[in-house]
Amino acid sequence: MGDPAGVGPEVCLMLLQRTVEFPSTAAELTVYGDRVLLGRVAEKTGLPLPDGDRIRHIDSLPNARGVSPGEVDATCGRAAYDYLATAIGAALDGEVDAIVTAPINKEALRAAGINFPGHTEILTELTKSERSCMLQYSEKVTASFATCHCGYADVPRLLTRERLREVIDLTHEALTRIKNRPAKLLALGLNPHAGEHGLFGNREEETIIVPELEEARKRGIDISGPVPPDTAFLPKTRRATDAFICMYHDQGHIPLKALAFDSAVNVTLGLPIVRTSVDHGTAFDIAWKGTANPGSIISAAQLAVQLCCCRP
Amino acid sequence: MGDPAGVGPEVCLMLLQRTVEFPSTAAELTVYGDRVLLGRVAEKTGLPLPDGDRIRHIDSLPNARGVSPGEVDATCGRAAYDYLATAIGAALDGEVDAIVTAPINKEALRAAGINFPGHTEILTELTKSERSCMLQYSEKVTASFATCHCGYADVPRLLTRERLREVIDLTHEALTRIKNRPAKLLALGLNPHAGEHGLFGNREEETIIVPELEEARKRGIDISGPVPPDTAFLPKTRRATDAFICMYHDQGHIPLKALAFDSAVNVTLGLPIVRTSVDHGTAFDIAWKGTANPGSIISAAQLAVQLCCCRP
Repeated sequence: MGDPAGVGPEVCLMLLQRTVEFPSTAAELTVYGDRVLLGRVAEKTGLPLPDGDRIRHIDSLPNARGVSPGEVDATCGRAAYDYLATAIGAALDGEVDAIVTAPINKEALRAAGINFPGHTEILTELTKSERSCMLQYSEKVTASFATCHCGYADVPRLLTRERLREVIDLTHEALTRIKNRPAKLLALGLNPHAGEHGLFGNREEETIIVPELEEARKRGIDISGPVPPDTAFLPKTRRATDAFICMYHDQGHIPLKALAFDSAVNVTLGLPIVRTSVDHGTAFDIAWKGTANPGSIISAAQLAVQLCCCRP
Repeated sequence: MGDPAGVGPEVCLMLLQRTVEFPSTAAELTVYGDRVLLGRVAEKTGLPLPDGDRIRHIDSLPNARGVSPGEVDATCGRAAYDYLATAIGAALDGEVDAIVTAPINKEALRAAGINFPGHTEILTELTKSERSCMLQYSEKVTASFATCHCGYADVPRLLTRERLREVIDLTHEALTRIKNRPAKLLALGLNPHAGEHGLFGNREEETIIVPELEEARKRGIDISGPVPPDTAFLPKTRRATDAFICMYHDQGHIPLKALAFDSAVNVTLGLPIVRTSVDHGTAFDIAWKGTANPGSIISAAQLAVQLCCCRP
């Protein structure tokens, strides 16, 4: 359900009005959250409240009647974490086949003393995964990230050959599964113009990216690059690419938001469970108004079902 | 004319077929380049060769008949520099009102022993300007750059309050002139999510960007931000913004190429002369085939004429 004070509750209610199926089997959807709060949001927005058996009530919010929409609240941060942790446990135990996450608020998490920069890191920790990687998937453009939720200045230190190898392998595996054929990947450079043969930067392209692409090709992976980041996302290249390997957060998120706003889905690769997520935030400014667009959570549920059905 | 081996000569020939005017006065266009080489490109592409008085021949290429399209060549790098330097001199002397530059090849420049990362730096040096800044202009999206042609890792060191102030002032002045009303500016953050209140990065938003925006507002400049870079370029924000102040090259070039490919124009602000440029490279793979798109050089000439006519 995500943060109770955000748009998570209402997009969950909107999702539960739909049928999500692949190829023809309808998924059973259950929202992990707070029954009282979902009732309040349903009343306020006019959205129907689903049957009780489609809500798995987690008793974490001390005062669900007192929560105000659009406010950073430590009890909401704690509750959002508890919903996620319970859902992860259910997925690890095989009670559910996949989890789809609504947005959490990092400041609320932090106010609750939970110090994770995002969903991905919580999932990695609670599933005891050794590696993971964020993939943003949409029909128009798909990208995975060698570094993601860190400061601009931290990227050069975090961008190692080992990390890049991990991300290439995880992305190749996921896209090959989704597309049901060998995936075509394209890696971006780190520097403007991909360094222009050493003119810009510290030769990160030559020392880190190029050698790992060569190694990946030896493992049979179809990967090109590194290409200049600013022309990588032109239509012709997008049509020929199943996934872009991005070196840092905004390199991929800027074109993703521009090209696939409201329809992109966030997938965490490398976990023992299937997990997808909306690609928007808590949108506190419009929370509980019933105007949030459910496009992203519907796409996220659709892709989760697809990933379950295509699991090797 | 740019690098003789690139698409510069043919887009110049295409431009010279047009009339560029603002509001109703047609500009006189002269290409600074090599007469023999332009003749070869005209013959190869079927484009008309303009009258001799519209070509200012600069005798720099030792063997214009031997140049091959699409090859990095030190003599071409030297010639491209000489065409530019001559045009800059003509603009400084008032012989021409503005210069419009076709693409140069940085590797060819370097092979000729000319060590500038790009046009902007050559212009700054030859016009003895103390400050300058690159602006990319298009009807859809316009951006200026606090840092530009440097490595990814060099940005945090180069992003100072002084530099940001310079870029804000130059951008405000130029856009106010182009729009003929006070410009509306929007600054981006450096870190993912604009740092999310210190969660990512070294608080560059709080220590550098926020205080300079406050200072700019005190000087009467209409500027907002810093906003998260990945959602800054959504349609609603674009419609409300005359120019985005970007912190680094790809932050602005990725959306610019995605949204305004073939029509964006590069302007150097802060010079004593008016200078605009195409926003594409030498495109060696399609040079001398007559298939290059002249959209960018036509827009560049149009904006140059407009900037001359609106000069205070």
